[in-house]
Amino acid sequence: MARRIGVADEIEFYGDSISGNCYKLQLVCAELDIEYRWHELDILAGDTRTPEFLAMNPNGKVPLMALADGRYLPESNAILCYLADGSDLFGEDRYSRAEILQWLFFEQYSHEPFIATSRFIVKYLGSPKERQSDLDSKKAGGYKALATMEATLSSGDFIAGERFSIADIALFAYTHVAHEGGFDLGSYSTIETWIKRIESRPQFVPMRMSSDRHQ
Amino acid sequence: MARRIGVADEIEFYGDSISGNCYKLQLVCAELDIEYRWHELDILAGDTRTPEFLAMNPNGKVPLMALADGRYLPESNAILCYLADGSDLFGEDRYSRAEILQWLFFEQYSHEPFIATSRFIVKYLGSPKERQSDLDSKKAGGYKALATMEATLSSGDFIAGERFSIADIALFAYTHVAHEGGFDLGSYSTIETWIKRIESRPQFVPMRMSSDRHQ
Repeated sequence: MARRIGVADEIEFYGDSISGNCYKLQLVCAELDIEYRWHELDILAGDTRTPEFLAMNPNGKVPLMALADGRYLPESNAILCYLADGSDLFGEDRYSRAEILQWLFFEQYSHEPFIATSRFIVKYLGSPKERQSDLDSKKAGGYKALATMEATLSSGDFIAGERFSIADIALFAYTHVAHEGGFDLGSYSTIETWIKRIESRPQFVPMRMSSDRHQ
Repeated sequence: MARRIGVADEIEFYGDSISGNCYKLQLVCAELDIEYRWHELDILAGDTRTPEFLAMNPNGKVPLMALADGRYLPESNAILCYLADGSDLFGEDRYSRAEILQWLFFEQYSHEPFIATSRFIVKYLGSPKERQSDLDSKKAGGYKALATMEATLSSGDFIAGERFSIADIALFAYTHVAHEGGFDLGSYSTIETWIKRIESRPQFVPMRMSSDRHQ
């Protein structure tokens, strides 16, 4: 288990369980044994576009973290950094921190816009005809991101450096459900081994899907 | 002038001066008085797709930082964090660091794909007909990012917290040339004032354009 760190009490998250970006926070809190209160929002029902939510996050996106003193923090990967700051899920020195951040930026720029967005179009919008060309255009970028991960994981068990970090958490969130967006991981055996490695961690929690919410 | 910090000597960058992502590094090094060697590459001529470059950065993107010990670091915003780690351009505590990171992730996810990409299509590809619908589709996202910045800057001089940081550097890089991608800053007077505030800093260096290289 990762070393627990001194995060302020009474952390609250606003999130939607269909979102991998929100799931990242459940993973890091399980690893660091951080308690939190979860406010479930429904993106598809417009819960992130209400005046109440936009007053908390003008960018209108989940996840959002609320601290006990009234401050807010959006952006899933910034929240990961906040929660893991000073723990062994982040880096001990300037270079190892930057190496982890490199992968967090890679995830948001070169992975999420292809793999997560494809999953959203397929699984939650039902692959509407008018989004088909958009969906097709995301294939090359998604497979390029997977190839970059496969190459990196071929020389080590984890994405950044030699131990499990928030870089693994950030990339695991949407990679382990990439098939739901139409990506075939069959040719990426090193990624599949890495997925099993993360799922077998003692503190691991599976992703709750929206179907749970509606059941 | 920002406090200088102990970065390893002999930093080298691989970059293209037409890229705002590369310009960020020139800005932070000027602020922190960090010396570096610059290797100018030409993205449009395919310099980032050669076997030699891909061996250094498999993702095939600039900027790339090379340290004297042979390690590399890609991703402009991760390099900003590396160079500013421990300086007063980054945060002193867990929350202020995360608040700055929030804006670095915002820049890469909600700003750069619209504003920087539009500029590339207009200024460097010459707005080809087959990219027109792509270009049109980026307008809404770009103006949304500018509106978020305008609202944030209406309550303070800088993007994150109360002082100049790498969040300002990251967002300045493409915002100050947004007009080159067809964005009109005329209705964003607070952003225009912030641009002038940054340009008047004693250590400020202007962006070198590709036209300089080819003259």
